[in-house]
Amino acid sequence: MSIFSQDTQLEALSEGLYRAQVSSNWSIMSAPNGGYLMALLGEAMSRYANLAKPVQVTVNYSAKTQENAPLEIEVQRFAQSRQFDRLQATARQGDRVVLQAFGTFMADYEQEVNSQEKLLNLAPKEDCRTRAGMPGLTVFDQVEMRIDPATAGWTKGDTTDVSEIYGWMRIPSLSEWSPTSLMMACDTCPPSIFVSHGALGWVPTIEMSVHIKNIPKSEWLKARFHSKYLGKTLLQEDGELWDEDDNLVAVSRQLAQFIPAQ
Amino acid sequence: MSIFSQDTQLEALSEGLYRAQVSSNWSIMSAPNGGYLMALLGEAMSRYANLAKPVQVTVNYSAKTQENAPLEIEVQRFAQSRQFDRLQATARQGDRVVLQAFGTFMADYEQEVNSQEKLLNLAPKEDCRTRAGMPGLTVFDQVEMRIDPATAGWTKGDTTDVSEIYGWMRIPSLSEWSPTSLMMACDTCPPSIFVSHGALGWVPTIEMSVHIKNIPKSEWLKARFHSKYLGKTLLQEDGELWDEDDNLVAVSRQLAQFIPAQ
Repeated sequence: MSIFSQDTQLEALSEGLYRAQVSSNWSIMSAPNGGYLMALLGEAMSRYANLAKPVQVTVNYSAKTQENAPLEIEVQRFAQSRQFDRLQATARQGDRVVLQAFGTFMADYEQEVNSQEKLLNLAPKEDCRTRAGMPGLTVFDQVEMRIDPATAGWTKGDTTDVSEIYGWMRIPSLSEWSPTSLMMACDTCPPSIFVSHGALGWVPTIEMSVHIKNIPKSEWLKARFHSKYLGKTLLQEDGELWDEDDNLVAVSRQLAQFIPAQ
Repeated sequence: MSIFSQDTQLEALSEGLYRAQVSSNWSIMSAPNGGYLMALLGEAMSRYANLAKPVQVTVNYSAKTQENAPLEIEVQRFAQSRQFDRLQATARQGDRVVLQAFGTFMADYEQEVNSQEKLLNLAPKEDCRTRAGMPGLTVFDQVEMRIDPATAGWTKGDTTDVSEIYGWMRIPSLSEWSPTSLMMACDTCPPSIFVSHGALGWVPTIEMSVHIKNIPKSEWLKARFHSKYLGKTLLQEDGELWDEDDNLVAVSRQLAQFIPAQ
């Protein structure tokens, strides 16, 4: 069993009620990654759903989730049709609601998605910079992220005008991708605002929505994240993931907060 | 009082419980527009919120909402911090949940949003095509939509390769824009897939998320909607609204379904 599968295991407590143990393997300075938390809720909703595939999951991050602690996830259905199963999940630590989510499920993914967005001309993996082994960033020991040198200047203090970051990504311990590991992948890249403004502090997610389009056919993914609209305290980041054959597999959007470093 | 204000009035039934009357003034073939329904939930959450301005509202459309019928909206708080008030709303007609929403509120909007997206070179309003007076499309009698001729070929049967539509928009009866009328504006434009594929049928929204950035300073808005990723039965549409001085005021994303005309 992969580390990701171990760390997203659930114990069923009763109908629609699950307990997860929040691992410290997917954290940024002790804060569990938003994609990992979405994967936990996605896993719980997938267990409860009458249709197999999550096509959209939207999570509200309303309070800090503690790592190395249990998380109780309650799933409810608010609508079902022949095509769509519509679920809601609420996650608590103690009495505190830390996460709220909606999920839409279908029987299967569409095999072809026509992407009018042009694909990246990525540098080869071996020319991209790895992020592993950074103290406090346990997530980069699990998710191998290789940033294209064209968007990695900020790591040496060189910022650009465009808040865009791209590169290659894989989870080496996974034998194959799943919808929930894709959710994990959608919040793993360093924030694209770092590329234009420097690694300025903390960028906690307020709400993130992921559309899953397909299961990747390759181990490595091509990933792009970009922030077109930046305010003083809020930013929006959009992301796209493709497999190595340029099939679009996931699209994400998040609203996040800036908290400048002291 | 404007028609929009009249049609988004709420009766408070008890703490956090409101009743709206769904108007038929904002419909497409008797189906209330998704932006109008978001405005009703946005209005209810705004009444309940401890902070004044909605910065993000996400609505799940789970069943058809009937026009000319009451809608009961229940609002609950799931988290509050100094900066953010986080609410959830559930809307029912009879016993049926037809809409579910999350809302994030702040004290005020940021006065400057740095938009890295290039703005449109729109045709002048007087050269754009109006959509008013179309039978069954009552929403276009309330929202004046003028489509740039560059993206209006589909109305005469000429489609293009790019699923993008843009133009000018206003609500003539409004004296000024508000967060909820902006939510209304985010789902008013004909679907951008019509531009590339023709007016092929029905495009009901599954989930829509709107980020409000600012209150427009002009009566007319510049609006752009585009679908970069199209599957066989699902599409994603992104939208941006600017005021006449090119201030970004709202950004939207929706997952919608195709239902081809018979």
